[in-house]
Amino acid sequence: MRRNEFSMEDQKEIEDFLSGMSFGFLGTTNEEGTPRVTPLNFAYVNGAFYFHGSRMGEKMDHLRLAPTVCFTVADEYALIPSYFSDPEMACPATAFFKSVTATGEVSIVDDLDEKAQAMEAMMQKLQPEGGYRTIDANDRAYASRLKGVAVIKLVPQQLSAKFKFGQNLKPDRLHAVLEGLECRAQTRDEETAKMICKYHPGPR
Amino acid sequence: MRRNEFSMEDQKEIEDFLSGMSFGFLGTTNEEGTPRVTPLNFAYVNGAFYFHGSRMGEKMDHLRLAPTVCFTVADEYALIPSYFSDPEMACPATAFFKSVTATGEVSIVDDLDEKAQAMEAMMQKLQPEGGYRTIDANDRAYASRLKGVAVIKLVPQQLSAKFKFGQNLKPDRLHAVLEGLECRAQTRDEETAKMICKYHPGPR
Repeated sequence: MRRNEFSMEDQKEIEDFLSGMSFGFLGTTNEEGTPRVTPLNFAYVNGAFYFHGSRMGEKMDHLRLAPTVCFTVADEYALIPSYFSDPEMACPATAFFKSVTATGEVSIVDDLDEKAQAMEAMMQKLQPEGGYRTIDANDRAYASRLKGVAVIKLVPQQLSAKFKFGQNLKPDRLHAVLEGLECRAQTRDEETAKMICKYHPGPR
Repeated sequence: MRRNEFSMEDQKEIEDFLSGMSFGFLGTTNEEGTPRVTPLNFAYVNGAFYFHGSRMGEKMDHLRLAPTVCFTVADEYALIPSYFSDPEMACPATAFFKSVTATGEVSIVDDLDEKAQAMEAMMQKLQPEGGYRTIDANDRAYASRLKGVAVIKLVPQQLSAKFKFGQNLKPDRLHAVLEGLECRAQTRDEETAKMICKYHPGPR
């Protein structure tokens, strides 16, 4: 990240963001070093990302050959039109968003108990209302399924977060953007305004 | 993609999806071959993806060294809980989504006219209501800004799309999922049900 003012270091903020996002994008490389980006549901548990998928397929081949990966999760809160702060030039047009990027080596989880815990964590995240039998490696009906699914674990060596909500804006532009959001009042504009106020470092 | 039933070949469908999505994820590799995944706004014009960014920064360094990239855009329509179609096992839990993945070599656009056209296309997409002076390389106020911004072009060598809306489901599970969506009636559930009906190949 080039611009420090957008960097988010607070682990609680990062974890809250990740727990609210259902999917992210896994970057792998094939044997020629060509990148591939795959959208995947995930769970983030005790500092590790877990994914699941078929045991076959190109993504798994890539991971066996080149276990160093990058996983990015991003959520765009609002597009900020240029006219919020400039009546003529298009340049101030931008997007306000949160993103988290993790890099590190993945491992393929073989232990059935850890597989079960990872899949159960994914269920608790993506289906928090329940309505299924707890995933347990000692449950015979689940054990065979767990053997058939691939579970991938990424313990990040680096993890960075970018929360971009106009922290670089001078007070007049900042107020113009806040007014613009209040007038536009689209679905996430109020939420975006709250983020702007929360993360702005104050007058400069 | 392992499963052909989710593959979308219709160019109009792919373009409509891309025109409705504001951002995607660019996979690049650094000098050690490590992947990096960056969220970016984009425009898709005449079969090419355009991105913009700072002329400095890690992403641009990566692109100069390793111009082969992957760009993926994905939209999750709905999480499908397991209990829609199975009262006990968690296994049917899934997500229905559209994604497009393009791979190819990027080029850095130096021509000011092409830069202006790309930035204008991005504005027309992300700020369709207007409210700015058209971006034109002959406009002196814009020319200096255009020189300062990096515009990247990706002409895909391969482009594939995955639209996953239960095309693999047998009739009883399919109807159970449609009923579940109708009862749940969350924001995008009606839209998701329409996609299921649109893309399902029919009874098997």
